[in-house]
Amino acid sequence: MLVVMKPQATPEEIQAVCTQIEHLGFRAHPLPGAQRTAIGITGNQGEIERGNIEELSGVAEVIRVTKPYKLVSRDSKEEDTIIHFPGTNATIGGRDLAIIAGPCGIESRDQAFAIAEAVANAGAQFFRGGAFKPRTSPYAFQGMGEEALQIMAEVREKFGLRIVTEAIDQETLALVEQYADVIQIGARNMQNFSLLKKAGHCRKPVLLKRGMSATLEELLMAAEYIMSEGNYQVILCERGVRTFTDHTRNTLDLSIVPAVQRLSHLPILVDPSHGTGKRNKVLPLSRAAIAVGADGVMVEVHNQPDKALSDGPQSIYPEQFVELINEVEQIAPVVHRTLTRGIQVEHLKAAAPDQVAHPAAR
Amino acid sequence: MLVVMKPQATPEEIQAVCTQIEHLGFRAHPLPGAQRTAIGITGNQGEIERGNIEELSGVAEVIRVTKPYKLVSRDSKEEDTIIHFPGTNATIGGRDLAIIAGPCGIESRDQAFAIAEAVANAGAQFFRGGAFKPRTSPYAFQGMGEEALQIMAEVREKFGLRIVTEAIDQETLALVEQYADVIQIGARNMQNFSLLKKAGHCRKPVLLKRGMSATLEELLMAAEYIMSEGNYQVILCERGVRTFTDHTRNTLDLSIVPAVQRLSHLPILVDPSHGTGKRNKVLPLSRAAIAVGADGVMVEVHNQPDKALSDGPQSIYPEQFVELINEVEQIAPVVHRTLTRGIQVEHLKAAAPDQVAHPAAR
Amino acid sequence: MLVVMKPQATPEEIQAVCTQIEHLGFRAHPLPGAQRTAIGITGNQGEIERGNIEELSGVAEVIRVTKPYKLVSRDSKEEDTIIHFPGTNATIGGRDLAIIAGPCGIESRDQAFAIAEAVANAGAQFFRGGAFKPRTSPYAFQGMGEEALQIMAEVREKFGLRIVTEAIDQETLALVEQYADVIQIGARNMQNFSLLKKAGHCRKPVLLKRGMSATLEELLMAAEYIMSEGNYQVILCERGVRTFTDHTRNTLDLSIVPAVQRLSHLPILVDPSHGTGKRNKVLPLSRAAIAVGADGVMVEVHNQPDKALSDGPQSIYPEQFVELINEVEQIAPVVHRTLTRGIQVEHLKAAAPDQVAHPAAR
Amino acid sequence: MLVVMKPQATPEEIQAVCTQIEHLGFRAHPLPGAQRTAIGITGNQGEIERGNIEELSGVAEVIRVTKPYKLVSRDSKEEDTIIHFPGTNATIGGRDLAIIAGPCGIESRDQAFAIAEAVANAGAQFFRGGAFKPRTSPYAFQGMGEEALQIMAEVREKFGLRIVTEAIDQETLALVEQYADVIQIGARNMQNFSLLKKAGHCRKPVLLKRGMSATLEELLMAAEYIMSEGNYQVILCERGVRTFTDHTRNTLDLSIVPAVQRLSHLPILVDPSHGTGKRNKVLPLSRAAIAVGADGVMVEVHNQPDKALSDGPQSIYPEQFVELINEVEQIAPVVHRTLTRGIQVEHLKAAAPDQVAHPAAR
Repeated sequence: MLVVMKPQATPEEIQAVCTQIEHLGFRAHPLPGAQRTAIGITGNQGEIERGNIEELSGVAEVIRVTKPYKLVSRDSKEEDTIIHFPGTNATIGGRDLAIIAGPCGIESRDQAFAIAEAVANAGAQFFRGGAFKPRTSPYAFQGMGEEALQIMAEVREKFGLRIVTEAIDQETLALVEQYADVIQIGARNMQNFSLLKKAGHCRKPVLLKRGMSATLEELLMAAEYIMSEGNYQVILCERGVRTFTDHTRNTLDLSIVPAVQRLSHLPILVDPSHGTGKRNKVLPLSRAAIAVGADGVMVEVHNQPDKALSDGPQSIYPEQFVELINEVEQIAPVVHRTLTRGIQVEHLKAAAPDQVAHPAAR
Repeated sequence: MLVVMKPQATPEEIQAVCTQIEHLGFRAHPLPGAQRTAIGITGNQGEIERGNIEELSGVAEVIRVTKPYKLVSRDSKEEDTIIHFPGTNATIGGRDLAIIAGPCGIESRDQAFAIAEAVANAGAQFFRGGAFKPRTSPYAFQGMGEEALQIMAEVREKFGLRIVTEAIDQETLALVEQYADVIQIGARNMQNFSLLKKAGHCRKPVLLKRGMSATLEELLMAAEYIMSEGNYQVILCERGVRTFTDHTRNTLDLSIVPAVQRLSHLPILVDPSHGTGKRNKVLPLSRAAIAVGADGVMVEVHNQPDKALSDGPQSIYPEQFVELINEVEQIAPVVHRTLTRGIQVEHLKAAAPDQVAHPAAR
Repeated sequence: MLVVMKPQATPEEIQAVCTQIEHLGFRAHPLPGAQRTAIGITGNQGEIERGNIEELSGVAEVIRVTKPYKLVSRDSKEEDTIIHFPGTNATIGGRDLAIIAGPCGIESRDQAFAIAEAVANAGAQFFRGGAFKPRTSPYAFQGMGEEALQIMAEVREKFGLRIVTEAIDQETLALVEQYADVIQIGARNMQNFSLLKKAGHCRKPVLLKRGMSATLEELLMAAEYIMSEGNYQVILCERGVRTFTDHTRNTLDLSIVPAVQRLSHLPILVDPSHGTGKRNKVLPLSRAAIAVGADGVMVEVHNQPDKALSDGPQSIYPEQFVELINEVEQIAPVVHRTLTRGIQVEHLKAAAPDQVAHPAAR
Repeated sequence: MLVVMKPQATPEEIQAVCTQIEHLGFRAHPLPGAQRTAIGITGNQGEIERGNIEELSGVAEVIRVTKPYKLVSRDSKEEDTIIHFPGTNATIGGRDLAIIAGPCGIESRDQAFAIAEAVANAGAQFFRGGAFKPRTSPYAFQGMGEEALQIMAEVREKFGLRIVTEAIDQETLALVEQYADVIQIGARNMQNFSLLKKAGHCRKPVLLKRGMSATLEELLMAAEYIMSEGNYQVILCERGVRTFTDHTRNTLDLSIVPAVQRLSHLPILVDPSHGTGKRNKVLPLSRAAIAVGADGVMVEVHNQPDKALSDGPQSIYPEQFVELINEVEQIAPVVHRTLTRGIQVEHLKAAAPDQVAHPAAR
């Protein structure tokens, strides 16, 4: 923290600020300048409320210096986190790109199997599908619930795809953890800290989507919540933020990919389906996501988007998904990545991913 | 819904769109224009996904016409909803302004009582205080929990103030409902639909804060979630939205007050403390909130903001709160309101507010 | 400026940063902390590019401390700037509230006179009207040009109202300066620095509207451009910023009023007509603007908004304007202001406002 | 336009709206629905102010249907516009990607030549450099003016690169037109309609940068301003928009590229230097820009960014530019593009680009 004094601040005011800082258990370092004095604060163990200082007489501004996240940071773990899926060759965060595809919501066994077959054949390693849908309207389709989870478990059995699906509260978290390979926390719940903590006790990887107006720091702090409870397998996902623009449903902020990679060791995916809300923009933005350096993409695919019960207009057709995979494959080497189509399942008993010990964990 | 065809759309394309609309169980009304044809859709019982039509050949745009909310709407209930607090003269939503004041978080019995006494003497009718704090960092003060609720119950007993406090998940909701007079749902949980539904089963009024990037429609739909489960006592609260500006923590969007009042019968308050994040802006924006027509304000007051464990810099001093009440009182008559200082508690047994039957409820 | 080093920065890296700072002609003040070292920079005469330092090895972040504006700042002039209009009792920025009213665009002599008479009778001191309209579409009504200026000069003659109208480029600036009492620079031109500089050479007060996505600092810097050329009579105006919200055309950011007043001595007005874009929100937000502490309001009034050639839906009727004035008058004393209805014109020759010498001017 | 009536609107109110529409010279098409009536409006020659209808009794909402732009639209010209540079093989908008590179501002002949040589050797076809810099602060470096234009003319002579530079007002526009091959209009001037019209009279292509908070429609309307004056050679450029995010200077909105390409025949480039404001994000976002389908990129390159007089931190080093070109070249075939490194200059006298007649021009 740095306290900037007003140009006309008196020596007494400067002294009073230093005293208050030390009173709070920190060290004050006055730094006289030509026009004004600044005071450095060190020893920020715990937390110092900016406002405690800001309102003192003679103070112009208080500036925070130290970042508040720890476990998500490259300072605490230098090398990239790679999520492994025991019994398979699938990874998220390593050299291999992760491709997650499937319908917005599971609507029936037939629909799920038809789409799963298509995306598996095209080369996806992960199948996504909503069992519990957070819908803006209480009168809209809310998902098939546990039945959808059972269908997805069958999909895994039959096609080898690993399953990604969203939990929206404590009850559904327990169910999702039981059935899925990756637990998704949606954008609207990114700051549902109670849910994040509970996800921190799960033994499955968590895919955390960026909130609609979350800053980079808030996204990292949400991941920190999960990690601080002991679950270090967190995957971040950019899915567009809310801005003034109206030509897409959200504004896909691809620059957050290199920004996350600079600060954090966690993998980051991009969801161009929610990120644009428009079918005709999913392919261009998927290419861009891979080109910018993302660890993979998550896209909505539907065999009959005209009849989809939710988010039809942003779902692509299976043929478009084939094209997407082809394009991604061509871009991959430019960013030193590979695309391994589909998933190889070993015949192992272990189904749950191992908890990799985190170096910064107590 | 209205479908706008491209200028060059063929009669066959127009026919195909009409067929698809009727196939989905709606009626199509083609409307040929000089340059292009539009097709009206009526009979929107249930929901029609815009995208099902948007991707048909020849279609330029699909425009939604009917609003998706029902119970919150003035269409379903013309007169203003007034929340009563049995056994007292306090109301929210009527001619009398509601003043809610107290610390961000309850830190101790002494702190709570000192502040409660100050705000009660100044003229507040409601006491706010956090027992469970949703904090961005897992390492920050998370609230005193049930102990804080007990302290607030004592505050009610002693000063007559009605209690407003936040629930952040299912467990805390049950506790808050037991102790408080108004259950607050915070901005970060405005689209935690699972929590909203559970709040819809409570028998206490719910104060719903606008999410950081929620549109007017999303705010109303969140209230609809609560009402659709049977709890019609919902109070909305503007608390600033996230924008590019950096001179305040959020941008207080006062224009939503008349906008809500036009569409909905629900009361709406303003929280200038979170809405600005700066102590020196709380009074000006409180005056503005009353002047714009809000049903009241919710402000953070702390006797020692320098030592507050959370949100110190946005809490005002008790003396400033006295000034705030004085200013609000002077502005009230301009907007045909009154300020009844403090609360009169009748000696009645009834403690829980009655569930007022909603005319639009089945 | 403050340079924050990475935790693992070596003494050599720290030394290299200090050397570079001194090489650029500044003084470096290393400040070792428990976790990391910060380096203060003083003597910021001229400008130091943040990036020159940011990319040095071992540097985590560079934080700017000194504000870049000078003449607009209260540091350079403590007391409020009050704009006088010689020969009249009208002021902007003093105890008296300034009320500016009139149509969006001047459409005819009859229209202008009818509206001017109405607003003069209601109590406005200033008449606004567009002669040159910056319209989004090249095919929309672009204003009547110099003829409109002549009509407004007649309005001044007949009703005593002082004239406010917009200049959009060099040519129109010369014309507007000749006819008007206040030269308006519109939101879209707030960063048209070439036009700002030219306005800095004018001898009439300049009303500078905040750009659609301008920060507080950018607004102040735009005013600094005008002042740095010698014209110290600048009036700021909040007119709404662009955000994700859709219930109003723009989001009126009333909190900028106290924020400006803290940092700058310049007066600040609010334009609730453009700030909301909706007739039914102009009165509530006008009340709020006065309650928050603005020096006045600028509103669009039209006798026949249904037939207005531009911005009809946000123009209020003359009767609404009478109500607005009445409400503003009631709120004024709460903020220690007065409303002097109408304008008293003295019989003086002096027509141009005096250039008040600015204490910070060379 | 579509008028949506309130559910409770009476037949008389509906009739009154129809009468008013026809009174304004349009045709009204009432469309009764189950819940409410909508009224279509056709024959929108000229302009109808939404508000004229919106305030009539019984009206719930007015929705605009027809887009206001004409010449920029694919409706008026189906095939892509390709800008040719006579005497060379360079194009913008065709199959070949356009690479524009150079310093933010021209600082000296030596600097310009050093950078120009580097970018020419690496494969750029266009050289950018500011002669007139729109700077937020009046005290910052404002550019070398005409001397910079002369230096750039020498650069063209020596390296064959075509020159792109910004005009900020009428005077500089005349100079820039004289010296440059492409006239740049900056983001801050995107709605300086006076400047746009003057650019519409120039005989050189205009590169129009998207304003900081411009919608897609506003960007297209700004281009329409230029085209409506007769200059059909307009190149659009995405350079980031202003949002709440703070990890980059602006948020690069790559989804506007396919959105523009759907609606308009004009070429669109991406500027990742201003779009991110950070050197370390220029390469990832350049790759993404090409992958999303842009017609090229414009990047800032500086041989000594530490010493740059403006925008140093976002300028890349020449070696990074070589890498950028290599990566772009690899991605090009995925989007059916080619990268022709450098420029072939034919020995022709013609220096000015031909004015291609626009099919939709009168």
